[in-house]
Amino acid sequence: MKVQVRFTIPEVEPVELTGTTAVVVDVLRATSTLVTALSRGAGAVFPAASTEDAIRLSQSLGREDTLLCGERKGLPIEGYDLGNSPREFTPEVVRGKRLIMNTTNGTRAFLSLEGADRVLAAAFLNLGAVVRAVEKAERLLVVCAGREDRFALEDAVCAGVLIQRLADGGVALDPGDGARAAMTLARTFRVDQAFLASTQAGQALVAAGLEGDLSWCAHTDALDHVPVFRDRSIVLSGTPEA
Amino acid sequence: MKVQVRFTIPEVEPVELTGTTAVVVDVLRATSTLVTALSRGAGAVFPAASTEDAIRLSQSLGREDTLLCGERKGLPIEGYDLGNSPREFTPEVVRGKRLIMNTTNGTRAFLSLEGADRVLAAAFLNLGAVVRAVEKAERLLVVCAGREDRFALEDAVCAGVLIQRLADGGVALDPGDGARAAMTLARTFRVDQAFLASTQAGQALVAAGLEGDLSWCAHTDALDHVPVFRDRSIVLSGTPEA
Repeated sequence: MKVQVRFTIPEVEPVELTGTTAVVVDVLRATSTLVTALSRGAGAVFPAASTEDAIRLSQSLGREDTLLCGERKGLPIEGYDLGNSPREFTPEVVRGKRLIMNTTNGTRAFLSLEGADRVLAAAFLNLGAVVRAVEKAERLLVVCAGREDRFALEDAVCAGVLIQRLADGGVALDPGDGARAAMTLARTFRVDQAFLASTQAGQALVAAGLEGDLSWCAHTDALDHVPVFRDRSIVLSGTPEA
Repeated sequence: MKVQVRFTIPEVEPVELTGTTAVVVDVLRATSTLVTALSRGAGAVFPAASTEDAIRLSQSLGREDTLLCGERKGLPIEGYDLGNSPREFTPEVVRGKRLIMNTTNGTRAFLSLEGADRVLAAAFLNLGAVVRAVEKAERLLVVCAGREDRFALEDAVCAGVLIQRLADGGVALDPGDGARAAMTLARTFRVDQAFLASTQAGQALVAAGLEGDLSWCAHTDALDHVPVFRDRSIVLSGTPEA
C-alpha cells in the first residue's frame, strides 16, 4: 500500500486523489465530534466551508430537523444550535437530525478531497474501525486538518497510529516522508488526556475551560463507526445512499 | 527559548517574525549548497524567487563576476553558469564571485522571512556553527523549505538535531508542536547518506544520478560557517556589511 500523510490541507494536490482512499484527521475536534454525533444517531452531517455556506445549506435543507453546529477559532458561533464540543452531541439532542457543521479546519478538509475514491473520517475514537475500512486500499492518503493550516502534533500522531496498525496487521507499506514521520511520532507519544493537553490545540482548549473534551477525544477505539463523505454529506459507512 | 518549527514555507506568518531569529533549512540542497559556496570563497549569494527575478538581478549586478546558479525541480536551468549541486561550487569556480541563486524551494524561504530580526541558513554541514549562533535567542523559528510546499523528512530531522543540541547544551526550551515532532524525529533517524537516500527528495536525486550530493550533504559539522541573509543577499556571519 502506498501511504502518504499530509500535515496540512494546502499540501494536498487534486492530482494525487484519483484512485486514492483519503482519511481526514482532526482530533481536536472536528472528526472526534463528527464520529460522536453520527454514533449518537445523527442522520447526516453536511460540512460547510464558511458561515455563508452554512446559511445557504440551512436554507436549502430547511431549518426543521437541522442543527447548525460549529466554531471559529474554538469559540461558538452566534445563532448556532451547537458548538464543536463532542460532549454536546448527546443522543437526545442529535437523534434523527441533520447537522450542518462549520469548523475552522476540519470541514474544509472534506471539501478539498472530493476527487478521491473514498473519503473517511478518523479520530482516536474510531481508529480500529478505520483501520479495518482501509486495509485493502492500494493508495492511502491521510490528511491532517492541522491548526490554521499548520502542523498539529495530535493529528500527526493519530495518522501515525493508524498507519502503524496497518503495518502491525501485516499490510506491506510503501510510506512517503510524512507517513514515516507520523509512524515515528506514534511510537513515541502515548495517547492520553495529558498528551492531548500538551499540544498547542489542547492548551487552547484547556485555556477555554474545555478540558473535558480532551478526555473524551483521547478514548482510542471507543466507537466502532466510520464516517464516510459522499454527495456533499457525511454518513456512517453502511448507511444506504440518500 | 520559545522554539517553533514550520515544515513548509506557507506555514510561516509574517506576524510571528518580529523579535525572532529565523533559521532556513533546505538540506537537499539549497542551504547545503549555499554554505558550501560561501565557505569556498563566494562573496555573496542573492536569492531569486523566479527566473525573471534572477534575470533582473543579473542585469542590475552586472554579468562580470556574477554566476547564475539554480535548478527547477532538481534540473539545471538553460543559460545558467551552475546548477544546484554543492560539488560544483569549488574554490576555483566561486572565489570572489557573486552568485544569484534560483531554486524551487530554498531561496523562496529567505525572501519570506524578511521581517525577522536575523535570518540564518542551516544544513547538516554547518549545524554546530548555527547552534552557537542561535543559543542566546529568545525566540527561534526554524523554517523547513520542504519539497514543493510539502513536508520533507530530511529538513525536519535537521531542524530537530539543531533543537536537540540546544537542549543538550542546557538551553531551556519552550517548544511548539512542530519543534516537539522534529526533536522526536532527530532522536530516531541516524543521519548518513543512506538516510538521505531514503527520503523522497533523496530518491529523486539518486534517480537523477546525483547520489554524490547526498554523501556531501550528510557530513554533519563539516563547515564552521553561518550564512546570514541581510539587505537582500546572503553572506557569511562576520562579513562586514556591503
